Amino acid sequence: MPVMAAEPWMTTSGEPTSLYGEPSRFARLQRERVNAHPYGPAAGSSSTPLQNLNGTITPNSLHFERHHSGIPDIDPAGHRLTVFGMVDRPLTFDYNSLLRYPMQSRILFLECSGNSYQNTALDAADMTCGELNGLISSSEWTGVPLHFLFDETGLDPKASWIIAEGADASANNRSIPLSLALEDSMIALYQNGEPLRPAHGYPMRLLVPGCEGNISIKWLTSMKLMDQAAHTREETSKYSDLMTNGIAEQFSLRMEVKSVITTPSGKMSLPGKGVYEISGLAWSGHGSIRRVDVSADGGRTWAEAEKQSEPGNLRAVRFRIPWQWNGQPAMLQSRAIDAMGHVQPTRSDALRGHAPGLVYHYNGIQSWRVNEDGRVRNHYA
Amino acid sequence: MPVMAAEPWMTTSGEPTSLYGEPSRFARLQRERVNAHPYGPAAGSSSTPLQNLNGTITPNSLHFERHHSGIPDIDPAGHRLTVFGMVDRPLTFDYNSLLRYPMQSRILFLECSGNSYQNTALDAADMTCGELNGLISSSEWTGVPLHFLFDETGLDPKASWIIAEGADASANNRSIPLSLALEDSMIALYQNGEPLRPAHGYPMRLLVPGCEGNISIKWLTSMKLMDQAAHTREETSKYSDLMTNGIAEQFSLRMEVKSVITTPSGKMSLPGKGVYEISGLAWSGHGSIRRVDVSADGGRTWAEAEKQSEPGNLRAVRFRIPWQWNGQPAMLQSRAIDAMGHVQPTRSDALRGHAPGLVYHYNGIQSWRVNEDGRVRNHYA
Repeated sequence: MPVMAAEPWMTTSGEPTSLYGEPSRFARLQRERVNAHPYGPAAGSSSTPLQNLNGTITPNSLHFERHHSGIPDIDPAGHRLTVFGMVDRPLTFDYNSLLRYPMQSRILFLECSGNSYQNTALDAADMTCGELNGLISSSEWTGVPLHFLFDETGLDPKASWIIAEGADASANNRSIPLSLALEDSMIALYQNGEPLRPAHGYPMRLLVPGCEGNISIKWLTSMKLMDQAAHTREETSKYSDLMTNGIAEQFSLRMEVKSVITTPSGKMSLPGKGVYEISGLAWSGHGSIRRVDVSADGGRTWAEAEKQSEPGNLRAVRFRIPWQWNGQPAMLQSRAIDAMGHVQPTRSDALRGHAPGLVYHYNGIQSWRVNEDGRVRNHYA
Repeated sequence: MPVMAAEPWMTTSGEPTSLYGEPSRFARLQRERVNAHPYGPAAGSSSTPLQNLNGTITPNSLHFERHHSGIPDIDPAGHRLTVFGMVDRPLTFDYNSLLRYPMQSRILFLECSGNSYQNTALDAADMTCGELNGLISSSEWTGVPLHFLFDETGLDPKASWIIAEGADASANNRSIPLSLALEDSMIALYQNGEPLRPAHGYPMRLLVPGCEGNISIKWLTSMKLMDQAAHTREETSKYSDLMTNGIAEQFSLRMEVKSVITTPSGKMSLPGKGVYEISGLAWSGHGSIRRVDVSADGGRTWAEAEKQSEPGNLRAVRFRIPWQWNGQPAMLQSRAIDAMGHVQPTRSDALRGHAPGLVYHYNGIQSWRVNEDGRVRNHYA
């Protein structure tokens, strides 16, 4: 047997079991604070540190946040969900009554429509993968399929939109096409096994799989059925796409096919030449991911990566491919193709037609430049 | 529009985004402390509060624990994994070098072989589902497939067992058949996206899917290749099955097909008659779950439950079925059948042949008696 020195932690009994576990003091991760919002800290966002994670699930403590008036501290006993408008019988549901409905569990990605917006600016910011692209997270969501509620209220055949509103101080609200919501939306009550947390909508939120996060209204307190969209502030002043022809495209709700290499990635330093695993995430609001290609030479040549997690519909997949770094400058890129055949565009193709300024729904290829000294940096290829 | 009173949380801005999220103060869950071990708190266990969770993923803070000498506080910079014995080239790996190997991500259940041991006692303890059956949890594990390490060390063709040892003060160690370990074991480095936590093996653990948790050695520091088992204390004094014929069966490593209704379950009270969702978890160390049957009359009649989560190999599935409670006494049971055709046995069938005393690998059907007043209680049917 080899002689192994006893490290200090082998010489004495460790800590006993705990009632609630914590990360190691040697591996404390935090969300990235990306957005000091001009309206104040309650209207900000924080993002998932993608470069420190692996697999596909995001721990709830590190799921990205985007709030419009902060996180309300809701007592579920005082919270109600009212369904009204173009229904046969307006109904109000409390938390305990929803717990008795049939539920479903699905692993889904959730992405803010503003994710990666820094890459639409003129200069490539030297930021980490999470700072740039971390407004996407993945969870197993469990809740009540929306159609069960409408089975009880009945629907006016002319109803075609849901106006969903949250119980935060901004009364954040959005219009959602009824047909879209009936496909597979749910009233989510659990996230990764446990009850929702306040930052993610406790006690209940709407969840519209594959669509921009903003329509999955947190702290859901009412759904009004209408025969037209309400054109609320969140779908006029924001979350619409202003094009160079002067037209603003509204209700671009499905998130497009996208991928990002999480390691090696921005602000990392490779310790020397040799073999590394290139690894990242790919997802699409149009279904599952068919293929992810990876390039180490800025898109001149591509190789297909392995998808080494269980693939699924509207679910992020983890892709991996080994890479031999020869110590020369390199440019790492990934390009996802979804089951519908959509191909993730280059940065310039993704921006084409958009007016200058904040671009929502940006899904251009992320390029990471590896310098000779091993430093990795965000780059516009 | 209905007149809705503004709850207090709608009248003022909420908390800003945080760097690390927390549960709601109205929904603080804790592990169940099930085992005040005679050797002291460092050799105890705590279990997942299954009755408070939904879906299939267990948040890391609530994953069950079972330690033999507490939780070591390991600095990854000082931790090594040595592979030696019947290999061509003994090798030592540090944490950073393992991070450069190809990895895989899989959602898997992990169950302690002592799970549900209280139900092998003479009297049915009035406990929650988690207190009784919560030594099972599920995570997405990410790590390096074991065979990559052996590709580098080479293997003596006569090597047939791995003796794996942890860096805790108990130097917890187990013998694992090499053929079993090579099927699909990994050196796990991430759990549910984030680096392992100290309670679950940080910085690295062995993970042998589908098998009793004890062989997935936490804080893994060495693997010795041998041509026979080592018969360590954990596979002689414990974790073996003493039968009535005086023989102790060793190395019953695969966990058998099992299920448990998590709601309604022990110590809950149903508020009145009406419709409830019966929901629970099913899993098998032999593969995937083919079917789960549910009975509300103590096993006289059965109905097939829906599997409403994504099924997978060696992965727990969430099953659900609506139930109309008429206010009369009822007896809720679930019975899982796996893809190999194994059927979960009744309690008496599961105990047959076992000597009295602590029984490992118990997988008998859990019965919950619902009294007329709605109180749910553990019961031996």
